Amino acid sequence: MTASGSTGTALVDALKARLGEAYVLTAASDLEGHVTESRGLYRGEALAAVRPRDRDEVAFVLRECAKAGVPVVPHGGNTGLVGGGVPFGGVVLSLTRLDRIREVDPVNATITVEAGCILKAVQDAASDAGYLFPLSLASEGSCRIGGNLATNAGGTAVLRYGNMRDLTLGLEVVLADGRVWDGLRGLRKDNTGYDLKDLFIGSEGTLGIITAAVLKLFPKPHARVTAFIGCASPHDALKVFQRLREAAGDQLTAFEYIPEFGLEIVLKHWAGAVRPLAEKHNSYALIELSSPQKDADLRSQLEAVLGEAFEEGLVQDAVLGSSEAQSQALWNLRESLSEVQGREGGSIKHDVAVPVSRVAEFIDVATKACEAEMPGVRVCAFGHFGDGNIHFNLSQPVGMDKREYLAQWGRFNRVVHDIVHGMNGSISAEHGIGLIKRDELALYKDAVALDLMRSLKRTLDPQNILNPGKVVSIGENVPMAFPKAG
Amino acid sequence: MTASGSTGTALVDALKARLGEAYVLTAASDLEGHVTESRGLYRGEALAAVRPRDRDEVAFVLRECAKAGVPVVPHGGNTGLVGGGVPFGGVVLSLTRLDRIREVDPVNATITVEAGCILKAVQDAASDAGYLFPLSLASEGSCRIGGNLATNAGGTAVLRYGNMRDLTLGLEVVLADGRVWDGLRGLRKDNTGYDLKDLFIGSEGTLGIITAAVLKLFPKPHARVTAFIGCASPHDALKVFQRLREAAGDQLTAFEYIPEFGLEIVLKHWAGAVRPLAEKHNSYALIELSSPQKDADLRSQLEAVLGEAFEEGLVQDAVLGSSEAQSQALWNLRESLSEVQGREGGSIKHDVAVPVSRVAEFIDVATKACEAEMPGVRVCAFGHFGDGNIHFNLSQPVGMDKREYLAQWGRFNRVVHDIVHGMNGSISAEHGIGLIKRDELALYKDAVALDLMRSLKRTLDPQNILNPGKVVSIGENVPMAFPKAG
Repeated sequence: MTASGSTGTALVDALKARLGEAYVLTAASDLEGHVTESRGLYRGEALAAVRPRDRDEVAFVLRECAKAGVPVVPHGGNTGLVGGGVPFGGVVLSLTRLDRIREVDPVNATITVEAGCILKAVQDAASDAGYLFPLSLASEGSCRIGGNLATNAGGTAVLRYGNMRDLTLGLEVVLADGRVWDGLRGLRKDNTGYDLKDLFIGSEGTLGIITAAVLKLFPKPHARVTAFIGCASPHDALKVFQRLREAAGDQLTAFEYIPEFGLEIVLKHWAGAVRPLAEKHNSYALIELSSPQKDADLRSQLEAVLGEAFEEGLVQDAVLGSSEAQSQALWNLRESLSEVQGREGGSIKHDVAVPVSRVAEFIDVATKACEAEMPGVRVCAFGHFGDGNIHFNLSQPVGMDKREYLAQWGRFNRVVHDIVHGMNGSISAEHGIGLIKRDELALYKDAVALDLMRSLKRTLDPQNILNPGKVVSIGENVPMAFPKAG
Repeated sequence: MTASGSTGTALVDALKARLGEAYVLTAASDLEGHVTESRGLYRGEALAAVRPRDRDEVAFVLRECAKAGVPVVPHGGNTGLVGGGVPFGGVVLSLTRLDRIREVDPVNATITVEAGCILKAVQDAASDAGYLFPLSLASEGSCRIGGNLATNAGGTAVLRYGNMRDLTLGLEVVLADGRVWDGLRGLRKDNTGYDLKDLFIGSEGTLGIITAAVLKLFPKPHARVTAFIGCASPHDALKVFQRLREAAGDQLTAFEYIPEFGLEIVLKHWAGAVRPLAEKHNSYALIELSSPQKDADLRSQLEAVLGEAFEEGLVQDAVLGSSEAQSQALWNLRESLSEVQGREGGSIKHDVAVPVSRVAEFIDVATKACEAEMPGVRVCAFGHFGDGNIHFNLSQPVGMDKREYLAQWGRFNRVVHDIVHGMNGSISAEHGIGLIKRDELALYKDAVALDLMRSLKRTLDPQNILNPGKVVSIGENVPMAFPKAG
């Protein structure tokens, strides 16, 4: 829905008067970065992109847009992977100028930050205060806290520290009508009524605009050890995971899975990557133990568990990173994986989760099903094994036309998501729903849950102006088919 | 609101026909335990108390009550401390027959339990499977999981493991109209839409009836060390807490605060209690470190931090529990504190939280304010110091009439809660709101938050039949003044 001409002009004028001309962009060239998204899957359109400087200006924008009945699509770093930030008319509300670190409270172990702070800047501010802010993901240099909150971001540290929801104590939110809810409290315990905070976290800008948050900090790890193991199957890897969790508890801070195909394409495309083990194995895991205790003997602990697993044949080979450089080299193998897939042609992606007890079974069953669906397809199932979260990506058969392959996206979604659903899993573990999975969600989500979601949306955004058409459709003024980018 | 005669009779008949006569109680003697509560502060009334055997029967009860417009007040163990389970007419829905442990999944580290399971039974089932279910509170032998969920229970393990919300992955909920939301998933990551689960957790039965949950399990601790320290002030205790957290991270599993007055009344009233340190100190802390790692040298870690703090005068004296029996004796000093307060006459209670950075300041300021308010009042401020959660209780002046003293409850609430509010704190850290704090909440909670709560209540319970009048008043058919028990 786009505001009709005169309404739009009046709105833009009102916004310019309050925010200043420089912060209300309407030229096509200025809007370009606000109507496209990171994967190039969609191209939207917008009346204007506005850049308020603080919470009160955000509230002003919301009040004006509510009065005019014009949609508002919030933007942080615009690094999302599900088209959640694509506008179809209306105003793009960029939070990038709200980038202040408002407070670091070292004794409370909290940091209060504005939505526009880049994740890396928050990590750095925590570090400067002697603490760890653990959220870590590939786009941390450009994604922003508001987007991390709106999508309940995950990443590589969830196993030990939880996702963005778990890391958040308080929020400041501007509602659809421009009222401000000040829930910026840094309390570990607060049972005074309904949990409003978690309603906004993960709602992808459809229920309110988060402008600031109080986040948890943790003691910095002072000891760390990394290992890379080769196993005969994901089932063996799962047994090793279980033993490590039992022995090391929360000292186990990563257990990331990489298949042989994944390692192969990293070695092929990533300059300087070296095969870490002498032989090839079916499955690999990157393991990290860490502790705030300076003299924690993590190496002995890890060697003891892996040694025993080796004796029993669960681990076929292993290497321990014995220096910071070696550890980093092992991590690079995992972290370059997302990028190198693009060099192997089309990649059809799934971001799924199953109970950890079924993650190996899921990899097996879904791999066979996809290989049967299209002979030659190359399964690259990798990721946060210890969370049950697998990026089940499918590289195209060698030599196939990329466009023709990508046209099969929906067909593979059906195969993979049916299996996930049958295992009581999730079709979006950490990326969210946005546009790309909205109609897919409607297929798999419990009907009562969908109905509750729609009720909540109607209650908090009765005009349907907050990022309309994303996450869940409530049937009014929502474009049902979204244009894909040319 | 009570259903008028004929509606009530027809409803009771319908419930008897489905649940069986034996499970629909209407005799005054049978209802007695369902219309009173643990502190004896309120006496309510009920048309009937029903005991469905499973989720489908719960759904039936809700459908029938919704049709008849009759309120439903859910009961677990009825151990709550805020009058949340007091019925004012309508049907008490007891969940005690839903007491099955549905599944233990050791690899996923989850347990699926019904709402009527006693907390201790869940702890035991976890332990039998080789795991820890960490929620621990004084009433664990009689409180039930449904109540723990409805009140987002806290307790002594929150510092390390979080509260009930943090321990919950999935829920099954019967809605106000009898529909069932099946959200019983055991996933570590699931970003498919709004977070419905956390809306019901902590809502004290006012938004839906929780019938089952998937809960997280943890590796059992295999090493443990306990210490009892004496400090010159809560400020010194806070500095010790901070150092321990930094050095030991999540191995720090308890940091409980006890003032000298608290220790005195324990020694006076608790058979076998022995003063653990040679001298008296202003403030004490019970400290526990634990680890799943069998050979973790927690004792050296603890001695190192405490030794350094002793050198600097932050710790005046300390004793380490060098056996399981000694540790238990130290814990008993803390755990008997709630009970012995009753032996010192009237006790006016506050369950508050502030940011951890202000907990020592809070104890100081609030103590002085209360002593100024009523000379001779004896402050017993104790509890979960590491969470910023203090049970700021006030024992009556010696010799004062108990009834006369307790009549000052509201006056002291104002003094204490004003201070808490000024520190951006919570007037109910872990006990909830129920009846006793409902009107108090309306004084202190952000107006926008209260309005959001009312909107959510109206959306999820449009007839206002789910535990009406608790937590937040929405103005319809709600008794505004509640009778106190005789």
